[in-house]
Amino acid sequence: MSERPIRLNAFDMACVGHQSMGLWRHPADQGWRYKDLRYWLELARLLERGLFDGLFIADVLGVYDVYGSSPDAALRNAVQVPVNDPILTIPAMAAATEHLGFGVTASISFEHPFPFARRMSTLDHLTNGRIGWNVVTSYLESGARNLGMVAQLTHDNRYDVADEYLDVCYKLWEGSWEDDAVVRDAERGVFTDPAKVHPIRHAGEHFTVPGIHLCEPSPQRTPVIYQAGSSPRGRRFASEHAEAIFTGGPTASHVAGIVADIRARMREAGREPHDARVYTIATVIVDETEAKARAKHDELRRLTSDEAALATVSGFMGFDLSAYDLDDPVEDVESNAIQGVVAGFRAAENDGRPWTVRDIARWAGIGGMGPVIVGSPSQVADELQRWVDEADVDGFNLAYAITPGTFEDIVERRGVHRTRYEPGTLREKLLGEGPRLPERHRGARMRALVRQ
Amino acid sequence: MSERPIRLNAFDMACVGHQSMGLWRHPADQGWRYKDLRYWLELARLLERGLFDGLFIADVLGVYDVYGSSPDAALRNAVQVPVNDPILTIPAMAAATEHLGFGVTASISFEHPFPFARRMSTLDHLTNGRIGWNVVTSYLESGARNLGMVAQLTHDNRYDVADEYLDVCYKLWEGSWEDDAVVRDAERGVFTDPAKVHPIRHAGEHFTVPGIHLCEPSPQRTPVIYQAGSSPRGRRFASEHAEAIFTGGPTASHVAGIVADIRARMREAGREPHDARVYTIATVIVDETEAKARAKHDELRRLTSDEAALATVSGFMGFDLSAYDLDDPVEDVESNAIQGVVAGFRAAENDGRPWTVRDIARWAGIGGMGPVIVGSPSQVADELQRWVDEADVDGFNLAYAITPGTFEDIVERRGVHRTRYEPGTLREKLLGEGPRLPERHRGARMRALVRQ
Repeated sequence: MSERPIRLNAFDMACVGHQSMGLWRHPADQGWRYKDLRYWLELARLLERGLFDGLFIADVLGVYDVYGSSPDAALRNAVQVPVNDPILTIPAMAAATEHLGFGVTASISFEHPFPFARRMSTLDHLTNGRIGWNVVTSYLESGARNLGMVAQLTHDNRYDVADEYLDVCYKLWEGSWEDDAVVRDAERGVFTDPAKVHPIRHAGEHFTVPGIHLCEPSPQRTPVIYQAGSSPRGRRFASEHAEAIFTGGPTASHVAGIVADIRARMREAGREPHDARVYTIATVIVDETEAKARAKHDELRRLTSDEAALATVSGFMGFDLSAYDLDDPVEDVESNAIQGVVAGFRAAENDGRPWTVRDIARWAGIGGMGPVIVGSPSQVADELQRWVDEADVDGFNLAYAITPGTFEDIVERRGVHRTRYEPGTLREKLLGEGPRLPERHRGARMRALVRQ
Repeated sequence: MSERPIRLNAFDMACVGHQSMGLWRHPADQGWRYKDLRYWLELARLLERGLFDGLFIADVLGVYDVYGSSPDAALRNAVQVPVNDPILTIPAMAAATEHLGFGVTASISFEHPFPFARRMSTLDHLTNGRIGWNVVTSYLESGARNLGMVAQLTHDNRYDVADEYLDVCYKLWEGSWEDDAVVRDAERGVFTDPAKVHPIRHAGEHFTVPGIHLCEPSPQRTPVIYQAGSSPRGRRFASEHAEAIFTGGPTASHVAGIVADIRARMREAGREPHDARVYTIATVIVDETEAKARAKHDELRRLTSDEAALATVSGFMGFDLSAYDLDDPVEDVESNAIQGVVAGFRAAENDGRPWTVRDIARWAGIGGMGPVIVGSPSQVADELQRWVDEADVDGFNLAYAITPGTFEDIVERRGVHRTRYEPGTLREKLLGEGPRLPERHRGARMRALVRQ
C-alpha cells in the first residue's frame, strides 16, 4: 500500500443509462428514476456514507445520432437520452449531505460567462463550498445544430475561447468583490461597501464584460475546476486550469503515459505536479467472493445491448458502425480512430485471437473506455492499488453497471480506502489547501488584474 | 364575499432586499440569508402552511446603476444586488413541500430555447409538475452590456422574438415526444419507441432547431406560463401565452383597467377570459389590532432608505433622480414617466398637499409600485376583498417588507382565504384543468405542427 488513500468519485448522468448499455433492463437497475429527485438524494447519502470525494455528473446537449444516421438506436436503448439538465439536482443533494462534493458538467460553447459565473457562484453558496465545474468545450454536433450553429469551432480554437471564458469567470469570481466588501452595517446603513466592488472591465477577443459580478464572494469563489479532455491541447488547458482531472484508458500503462504528461505540463505552467487530483475511469463489480462477483458480471453481460454499445462508440468516435455485421473482423472497420481504440482494448485483455465488431460492443457495453474490475473486495482493492501505483493516479472515477446497485456494492464492501472526510470546502478536501485558489493558479492572478 | 377564494402568491427574489428598501437593517429581517438554502426551505414550508398558490422568484441580470450613473447606491443599500441565480433553489424547495407552486423568472434574451426547454422540463420533472415560468423579454441595460450586446432589441421587436422563442419551446415540450413514447419494455429491449419521438424541424426568423427534445414528457409538459409585462404589446403577448399574470398599480381602479383590457384581449386570442389567473402586487402589514399593525408599519417606515428607493425608481424608470434634493417639488422632475407614476401614487393616497421627491422615496420604500395594506386581520381581508371586487383580480402577489416576518404574519393571521389545496399539478391547481395546456392555447396548437 502506498500512503496516499485511494480517492473515489462516482460518475453519473441525469439520464437512464450512462456508461452501461442496455442495463436499464436489469431488474435491479433504477436509472429510469433519474427524473425523480429522491433517486439523487438517496445516491448522495449513499456516496457520503462511502466517503466518496464527490459525485460527477456528466452531460451532453445532444443525441448520439451517428449510428445509422439517426437517433433511433440511442432512443430505443436509452443511450444518454432522454437526458435532463444536471445542475438542478445539486442544491437538494447538498442539503441532504455534509461533505460530498458535486462536479457538474457545463459547456462554454453555449452559454455566456456572465450569467454562467452567477450560476456557479450561487451553487457554491448553496452547497457551502462543495461545487466543482467540469469544463467542457463543446457538445455533440447534434447539439450544435439545434443551437443554430452551422459548424462548431475547430478543436484547438475552442480551447482558446475556453481560456478567455475562464479568465472572464476568474475576474468575476476572484477579482470583483473583495473579501470584506459585504459589511452589513445597519448603523451606517451600508450593506456592501461600493469601494470594494470592482468592475472587471474585460474587453477580449471573444467576450466583453465591463461590469461587476452580481454575487457576493462564495466559500470557494472559483469552483474546483474539473477537466476531462485528453487531446494535447486539452491537456495543456488542464495543466493551466484543472484541479481535478478525469482521464481514462483501458490499461494502467496507457493511463500512466497520460498522467506523466499532465503532471509535466503542470510544472511547465508554474504549478505543482500534484495541484490536480487525477481520477481514471473504472467500473467495479465486487461481491464477497470472486465466484459471486464473476457470476454477477456474467449476468450483467447477458443484459448489455450490442446496438446500444455500437451507437455510443459511433457517436463518440464520429464513425458509423451500423454498416458492419457483428461478426465482421475489426480490421474491416475503416476508421483509424476506432482501430486505435480497439488496439487499446485488446492490449487490456491480452487477447491474441482475432476481434470482431461484436468484441467492440462487448467491451463498450459496460464502463465506457475504462476497465471493468471484477472480484472479491481484496482482489478489487489490489487491482485498484496496482492502477494507482502504475498510473500515478489519485483515484478512480467509478461508473456504474447498474445504479445504485454498483455503488451500493462498493460502499458496502469497500476496503478502508479512507476513514473520514477532510474538513472544509471541496477544494480543501481534495487538495489540502484553500478554500480559495492558490496564488500559483492562473485564476488567482486575475485578482490583481481587476484591482490594478 | 364573492364566491371565488382569494389567491395568494409570495413574491421574493434571490437577493437581500427585493421590494423593501433598506429594511435589511430591521433586526428581524432575514433577507441576507438568501444564499443559504435553509432560508428557502423554511420559506417554502411556511407558504405551504399558509396555502399560498406559489412562490414567485423575480430576477434581474444586472444592477440598478441609473441613479448617479453608478451602482454605488444599489450596492450600499443592497437594492437587488448581490443577486443569485433563482432557479437553483427550486428542486430542494419542491422536495420540502407537496403542493406549493414555483414560478421562476427567466429572460428569453440571453439563453437559447433548446437548452432552456430542457432546463424547464427538468424542473417540471423534479417538482412533479409544480413549475411556472415567468417569461421576461429583457433584463436591465447593465445586464445587456455585460453580455456584449451593444443595445437591446426594441421593445416591440423583443416580443416578436419572444413569440417565436415560445413556439420553439412549445414544439419541444408539446410536440416532440408522444405521451406513450417511453415504453420501458425490457422484454423487447425498447426503452423509448423512436417512432413516437419527433424532430421539431423548426426553421424560423430567429431560431433554427431541427432536432428532438432531449427530455421525456414531464407532468405538465409546458410549465405554467407567467407573464408580468404591462405595455400594450406585453398585454397582447400575455393574452396569447399567459396562464398567470402578475400586474400592479397603486389603486384598484387603475388595476381594473388593466385587467379588463387583458381579459378582453384573451377573448380575442380565442381563449376564455379567465384562462389566466391575475395577481396584483400588494404588501400586507397585519397584526392582531389596527393599532399594532400601524405601529409595526411606522417602525418599518423609519428604517426604509430614501436613497435605496430613489435608486430603484431611477433604474426602473430609466431616469436619474440623484440630481434632485429630497425637498424638491415633484413638478421639477423632468420625466413624464415619473410624473405619471407619481400621479397614480397621489391618487392612491387621496393626498391634496404638494408632493416632494421625498414622497416618491416614501412611497417606493415598501412594496414597489403597489399598495401597502395595513390593519387588523379583518381590515386587511376587507381591503383585499375590495380590490378583488373592484379590479377583477384573482388574488395578490404579496411582496414582503421584511422576510420571512411579513409572510409569517400573513400565514398566522390570515382569514380563511381558502381551506385546502386543489389536487394535481400547478396548472390543475390554478386553472382547474390540465395537467396539459388546453387545446385552445397557442402552445397546444404546436403539437399538430410537429406531427403533421
